[in-house]
Amino acid sequence: MSTGMKRTTEKNLMVFSGRAHHELAEAVAADLGTQLVPTELRDFANTEMYVRFEESVRGCDAFVIQSHTAPINKWIMEHLLMVDALKRASAKRITVVTPFYGYARQDKKSRGREPISARLMADMFKVAGADRLMTVDLHTDQIQGFFDGPVDHLQALPILTEHVASKYGTEELTVVSPDAGRIKVAEQWSRRLDNAPLAFIHKTRDVTKANSSVANRVIGHVEGRTCVLVDDMIDSGGTICHAADALMNDGAASVIIAATHAIFSEPAVQRLRDSVAREIVVTDTLPITPEKEFEKLTALSIAPLLGQAIREVFEDGSVTSMFTP
Amino acid sequence: MSTGMKRTTEKNLMVFSGRAHHELAEAVAADLGTQLVPTELRDFANTEMYVRFEESVRGCDAFVIQSHTAPINKWIMEHLLMVDALKRASAKRITVVTPFYGYARQDKKSRGREPISARLMADMFKVAGADRLMTVDLHTDQIQGFFDGPVDHLQALPILTEHVASKYGTEELTVVSPDAGRIKVAEQWSRRLDNAPLAFIHKTRDVTKANSSVANRVIGHVEGRTCVLVDDMIDSGGTICHAADALMNDGAASVIIAATHAIFSEPAVQRLRDSVAREIVVTDTLPITPEKEFEKLTALSIAPLLGQAIREVFEDGSVTSMFTP
Amino acid sequence: MSTGMKRTTEKNLMVFSGRAHHELAEAVAADLGTQLVPTELRDFANTEMYVRFEESVRGCDAFVIQSHTAPINKWIMEHLLMVDALKRASAKRITVVTPFYGYARQDKKSRGREPISARLMADMFKVAGADRLMTVDLHTDQIQGFFDGPVDHLQALPILTEHVASKYGTEELTVVSPDAGRIKVAEQWSRRLDNAPLAFIHKTRDVTKANSSVANRVIGHVEGRTCVLVDDMIDSGGTICHAADALMNDGAASVIIAATHAIFSEPAVQRLRDSVAREIVVTDTLPITPEKEFEKLTALSIAPLLGQAIREVFEDGSVTSMFTP
Amino acid sequence: MSTGMKRTTEKNLMVFSGRAHHELAEAVAADLGTQLVPTELRDFANTEMYVRFEESVRGCDAFVIQSHTAPINKWIMEHLLMVDALKRASAKRITVVTPFYGYARQDKKSRGREPISARLMADMFKVAGADRLMTVDLHTDQIQGFFDGPVDHLQALPILTEHVASKYGTEELTVVSPDAGRIKVAEQWSRRLDNAPLAFIHKTRDVTKANSSVANRVIGHVEGRTCVLVDDMIDSGGTICHAADALMNDGAASVIIAATHAIFSEPAVQRLRDSVAREIVVTDTLPITPEKEFEKLTALSIAPLLGQAIREVFEDGSVTSMFTP
Amino acid sequence: MSTGMKRTTEKNLMVFSGRAHHELAEAVAADLGTQLVPTELRDFANTEMYVRFEESVRGCDAFVIQSHTAPINKWIMEHLLMVDALKRASAKRITVVTPFYGYARQDKKSRGREPISARLMADMFKVAGADRLMTVDLHTDQIQGFFDGPVDHLQALPILTEHVASKYGTEELTVVSPDAGRIKVAEQWSRRLDNAPLAFIHKTRDVTKANSSVANRVIGHVEGRTCVLVDDMIDSGGTICHAADALMNDGAASVIIAATHAIFSEPAVQRLRDSVAREIVVTDTLPITPEKEFEKLTALSIAPLLGQAIREVFEDGSVTSMFTP
Amino acid sequence: MSTGMKRTTEKNLMVFSGRAHHELAEAVAADLGTQLVPTELRDFANTEMYVRFEESVRGCDAFVIQSHTAPINKWIMEHLLMVDALKRASAKRITVVTPFYGYARQDKKSRGREPISARLMADMFKVAGADRLMTVDLHTDQIQGFFDGPVDHLQALPILTEHVASKYGTEELTVVSPDAGRIKVAEQWSRRLDNAPLAFIHKTRDVTKANSSVANRVIGHVEGRTCVLVDDMIDSGGTICHAADALMNDGAASVIIAATHAIFSEPAVQRLRDSVAREIVVTDTLPITPEKEFEKLTALSIAPLLGQAIREVFEDGSVTSMFTP
Repeated sequence: MSTGMKRTTEKNLMVFSGRAHHELAEAVAADLGTQLVPTELRDFANTEMYVRFEESVRGCDAFVIQSHTAPINKWIMEHLLMVDALKRASAKRITVVTPFYGYARQDKKSRGREPISARLMADMFKVAGADRLMTVDLHTDQIQGFFDGPVDHLQALPILTEHVASKYGTEELTVVSPDAGRIKVAEQWSRRLDNAPLAFIHKTRDVTKANSSVANRVIGHVEGRTCVLVDDMIDSGGTICHAADALMNDGAASVIIAATHAIFSEPAVQRLRDSVAREIVVTDTLPITPEKEFEKLTALSIAPLLGQAIREVFEDGSVTSMFTP
Repeated sequence: MSTGMKRTTEKNLMVFSGRAHHELAEAVAADLGTQLVPTELRDFANTEMYVRFEESVRGCDAFVIQSHTAPINKWIMEHLLMVDALKRASAKRITVVTPFYGYARQDKKSRGREPISARLMADMFKVAGADRLMTVDLHTDQIQGFFDGPVDHLQALPILTEHVASKYGTEELTVVSPDAGRIKVAEQWSRRLDNAPLAFIHKTRDVTKANSSVANRVIGHVEGRTCVLVDDMIDSGGTICHAADALMNDGAASVIIAATHAIFSEPAVQRLRDSVAREIVVTDTLPITPEKEFEKLTALSIAPLLGQAIREVFEDGSVTSMFTP
Repeated sequence: MSTGMKRTTEKNLMVFSGRAHHELAEAVAADLGTQLVPTELRDFANTEMYVRFEESVRGCDAFVIQSHTAPINKWIMEHLLMVDALKRASAKRITVVTPFYGYARQDKKSRGREPISARLMADMFKVAGADRLMTVDLHTDQIQGFFDGPVDHLQALPILTEHVASKYGTEELTVVSPDAGRIKVAEQWSRRLDNAPLAFIHKTRDVTKANSSVANRVIGHVEGRTCVLVDDMIDSGGTICHAADALMNDGAASVIIAATHAIFSEPAVQRLRDSVAREIVVTDTLPITPEKEFEKLTALSIAPLLGQAIREVFEDGSVTSMFTP
Repeated sequence: MSTGMKRTTEKNLMVFSGRAHHELAEAVAADLGTQLVPTELRDFANTEMYVRFEESVRGCDAFVIQSHTAPINKWIMEHLLMVDALKRASAKRITVVTPFYGYARQDKKSRGREPISARLMADMFKVAGADRLMTVDLHTDQIQGFFDGPVDHLQALPILTEHVASKYGTEELTVVSPDAGRIKVAEQWSRRLDNAPLAFIHKTRDVTKANSSVANRVIGHVEGRTCVLVDDMIDSGGTICHAADALMNDGAASVIIAATHAIFSEPAVQRLRDSVAREIVVTDTLPITPEKEFEKLTALSIAPLLGQAIREVFEDGSVTSMFTP
Repeated sequence: MSTGMKRTTEKNLMVFSGRAHHELAEAVAADLGTQLVPTELRDFANTEMYVRFEESVRGCDAFVIQSHTAPINKWIMEHLLMVDALKRASAKRITVVTPFYGYARQDKKSRGREPISARLMADMFKVAGADRLMTVDLHTDQIQGFFDGPVDHLQALPILTEHVASKYGTEELTVVSPDAGRIKVAEQWSRRLDNAPLAFIHKTRDVTKANSSVANRVIGHVEGRTCVLVDDMIDSGGTICHAADALMNDGAASVIIAATHAIFSEPAVQRLRDSVAREIVVTDTLPITPEKEFEKLTALSIAPLLGQAIREVFEDGSVTSMFTP
Repeated sequence: MSTGMKRTTEKNLMVFSGRAHHELAEAVAADLGTQLVPTELRDFANTEMYVRFEESVRGCDAFVIQSHTAPINKWIMEHLLMVDALKRASAKRITVVTPFYGYARQDKKSRGREPISARLMADMFKVAGADRLMTVDLHTDQIQGFFDGPVDHLQALPILTEHVASKYGTEELTVVSPDAGRIKVAEQWSRRLDNAPLAFIHKTRDVTKANSSVANRVIGHVEGRTCVLVDDMIDSGGTICHAADALMNDGAASVIIAATHAIFSEPAVQRLRDSVAREIVVTDTLPITPEKEFEKLTALSIAPLLGQAIREVFEDGSVTSMFTP
């Protein structure tokens, strides 16, 4: 008998999911060859929520998947409660997986006395116990710097461009940004589509009318081109559908709309269905419920990307190399 | 000309309110002889929220009122966003005022792998920028210790007992706790009602039946007495109405129900209206919307208590002395 | 030759003990099949203390046992110094094991301008370097939430109830709480003793006498019953002995006293020995020195419980399942 | 005699400067009607630095000005040492004033295994003791969110556009962004210049040549226009001079270059002097030493802006309202 | 009626004392022209302690005096509890005043696996809520750097040297350090005593004897001189008395012993009384109880120094200038 | 298929180096039988720096070597950027290895309103992400306590004394400290050199001249002895060369100078070359560039010491035991 007892160390990957987008989490777990940890998740009468894991999680390498869809405050809070429960149950490492990062657009103070909500989210996950963050196509890359720890920032770009290239690659493509702030993303598309030319929509106040109205001016040549109108997310769809109209008005041959995050708030579905676009291509980082589906919509699965990234993290591989052409 | 520029220092009280219970905040501001700071608060299409204060808050002593009612996760998040915005706008000191503290009942791990949600709330307010916390009748006193800073823990007891004493003081009163865990509260009531005797309801599994059923056994003497059944909150009302029935079955003369927080989740209103109770006395720490009002209900205003406490905090007076008989 | 050098990882359990209750720590180590790490612990002339581990602790999974007995401030400080030394000596994980958690009763502000000492203790262990906490029967469950990390909250209840059931199970038992605040504990006893009926002692100011005197009123039926008077701790023994007297006065057949923590401050031993109780049952979470032993006292060993819990933590098993009937 | 001694509180503004850009700090102090606090600042033989304030700073509201110019690591470290010294000398509040924020361009991970240097700077100022941050025209707005506290983000835009409008307002202006990532800034210029049309330069790999070469394609109409080529900073000047060439090649009537931060690394001065631009307009957020001056260069003073912002902060006024048209 | 309520700000100095050295705290309060805040401080039966302030402390500038004398762990803990109570009671600023800083000698790891206790103390006061620290003659100056905030490090040197100079200034003085590590202090004495020559005692293992014995070799000339043997503290007095013997053996005319902190652990009093020294001069940073007094002992009061320093801190004066000759 | 995926854990040592002293880092890696991780390190035109690791570092046990030589602020910043990049790239544990710790001499406030730069360095490495610190011969041992985590404090003493003992062991040695503050170090030398006698240099103001001049007085006997003049570092060499002169003036037979850190700021090389010393012995904790080499200089390699310490840390061995005779 002596001091100390030795054991060989094993690590144990466990995947957890909140209720916001359970199908995606199941697809990720299946991709990894495992199952989601059974978890009790429910609402009390007064809308407080309850979380409990039904298996021991002691010492595990936890990946907690929740996509921040509507009602977004509820699902973010559930996500936080799950992290707190994992911390207190002695999980060894906790990675928050949020395919769509809530409040990402409030990443700066545009005017005085606003919050920087995206930073607050990062701090709240940290204080709840998150060690790491994994997410897809942040609204701005700088949000990585809001979290005090490693962030795996995955890109849906390869998935989306592969679809567009294989289907429309033989046409004369122009990549279009719907506003001045997203042209960097359009440049990345251009690089993956044989340096296709760029254009963007410049929104100005129409000086001939009262001051709340806006005119969309196309900057760049789009006449006769198949325009791929790209953004990181489609919320209520107003901006992107007006942009599509502007392109057709300027003589575009056709318009394809592509975005990573299909928020599809009211009345996005109606607008997109009725729009001039030939196809709308998105991923399922957010749930595409049946009432959000329509004929022109293509939703590509993000689960294999998340599955591969989780595997690389667990096995100390490289996530970066997943996106190196 | 020399180094340094001096000014006499002034302090400036400002009161803010989220959207959860605006009437209460207005009543508090009125009690203080001021007005709520005009604030833009709205929902985006995807249920994210936006906050902005419409006046400079630089250097102010901020009191931010939000009562955590349903949908509770939304209102807590709005509360947090307001605190973050105040911090980044250079408020000098931020006091979170939450007449009802959300998730207070999840103040411990009852079983393994649960969160301690009440602690998480405290940590989130701290990380958002809160310096102080003010609240009324916490579910357990220990929650004060969850926040790393001063907590002003106000009591509605004087307001409630004064009402009961003035109305029923001439009858033979017994104070009753609806379960074993709340008898401490009943003892405080007893002390304020001339040492009225105590009783409580002991819930046991009925051994003569299948295991999910429960029997309510009254411990203590209630026959012929006016029973004041007291709790900190009424949620869906099941427990307290069954307790009232048990008291009447044991021969009580009548039952008065009293509680600080009127959560009134479905179907509380129906249950209470149809109950054996003569009167239900609560405060308005949570909004009593018109559909929650009914004949036997008395809702006492908590605004003067909050107003006085804020005044004491602002002017470096004593909050403690407000509750010393 | 290439970049990086790989090794298979081993984990190494090491058990440490301060001087407060060395026998218990030795029993725990023996239960685990190991030995305490040799440690130099001594007082300087001016009552400062010195700590040094006599073996390398680099990379170990450290469990540091100290029971907070009198002189409690000294032993808590020694506990903190040991944690600091482990942190600076590169222990991989540090679990503070405190069978009795000092200052647990100061878990809230009862009046203004008091400390919340139990929270301060949690924060001090955190800042010294503790990653985890293990303890037995906290005064209130909420103290778990004072520590920012995992807390293994063990229960002596199965050990105590097994003893009582095997010895008195054939008698007519009533479980009694010595005051209104501990009835929850009595309910747990009741569940483990075939739903034995409950009673409690209600302390009131005796209105017939001057205002400092107190009367103990028994709430519930105890006549002819074998009363099991339960509490989490026995300090100077006054409350519990008066409660036993009150039960006998109300016609109880006999009284058994049971509690987890035998603080036994002066004059507890004399009071208990001279009391009406048939037996006093406790555990050895605190040292029962020879002068604290007396005929009616039974002290059950807590070491196997601590040993099993440490083993589960080290091997990533489940502590929760230890207490699931 | 009683407990407590009261005094009326005064606040005291003090302005400090490192050695990086002393002229600017002096101009700011003069604008405020005060003087810089005398400070000993020097290098030891081994390039460590020494800081000491020669007057008491106890209780002051400190504004510490240092512009992060070359050698940038030295001046950032001096800035940090000054903050540490102020913290330890009991300054009441410390605002770091950095007209040019060093490492702002490293605000995200462009590739794996890079630092996010701009976040690290924010964290280092925080840990040194900074309470607040004041800066001018951050490379991206999101950097505000890197600092855990209030950030006053000032804009040089009004100063620059006023100069351009008064001098060239009668010509046909087009605002041009030198790359896709800065078009948002160009939009703000456009708004202040009567909605002047926009254009931008799209850099692509020239497919007719080897893969390292790049072509500048102008997106938008510039023929016959006076192009105002705008950026937040000019470093070595290559990008902006090539952009000016591309505009002239596409038929622009003339080119004005405008930027807030004149980094002017080698060989910026030569490039700009020899460029096609009619005028280069900058501010003095960074020192314009004599060897950096040349005929076409106009350097506008930023001191009045900083002076006004410091005054507003000190007197609890509104900084936001300084930029509301 | 409008938003916001303004008041002129007052600051309020309050002085608090633990039980370790109440006389000193009273003398400090008297020096300041105020009184100690009435405070309830007592021990529970199990040696836990209780703290409560009997007046409102909201918004005050608190100075909490406790000298860390034996039983040192108890008094440090009381000090910490007082700070926690002040934090939770909304004191505006908390300065810990510890004339003798406990565990100061454990300021480094001399060997592996020791704590750095002096750093732990600093961290514990910080986590309890201390904003500032005030202390006298730290064992090493570096301990200032252990606390993350302002430290007012006062010197008793002027008080001690003034006494020695006025009494022995006409004799031929040599300043002597009792060991190699304290010669810096001796140099400061020398500077204040007209550059009196220095000497020190070099302790070596006596190679002629077994390895635990030690020889004291005097380095420097002491023959015929009045030796002033100086140290920061006298604990059990062994070192300093042996040093005095060595000096007399080497021909010193006489020996005066001077030190700031009179710890006087057993058997210091007996040793010093029986020693060859003509006089022992100390201050009352630690309590000199009657049984520690003896004929040759002179205890100078430190209260005026603490009083002046507190006044300077409260009124934003300069503490540094108190020690500039 | 079930929940959870298990893998055996491996740990992976990786060694990184900044540009300050690449040769030393290569020697350490070679000693360990590995290679430095290929890293891109370069300066931008404006003197900002860029860092990127060219291999995945996920999950590694990282040792980041940088010696803080001139230009010291640049190399410290590079060191910090490397740590930040490792943290964000998911290194498992980060040990900062700084053979010479920059700003170590500013370890206290000598006068008011100075920074404690050595503490600031520790805090900056912590906030950047450092878990541990490894360094050689700190200026004062207390600096260990500035870092909140494990510090491996290595000693060059065995290397230096072995050289001196083997070369000069047969002569009559006296160990000399160049000033009063470093005599502790001289004592350690004495212990390793058969208890050689000690002496030190006392610097005084020469009272016969104007007040800025200084006289070096030798305390102790050096006549006819081989004096080993020892210090932790040699900066510009003035102090140590004057000390050597003083020893020769007092009749020393010869002087050997020995120090761990060869800072060698101008004009150290010239002074040492022209000095009376027979030999100057140092280590290569700092780079000895060719222009710093001269005939009498001996530079011993510190790489084996660092290599062994890193190996012990990686394999959970004992660093302490490396220095136990």
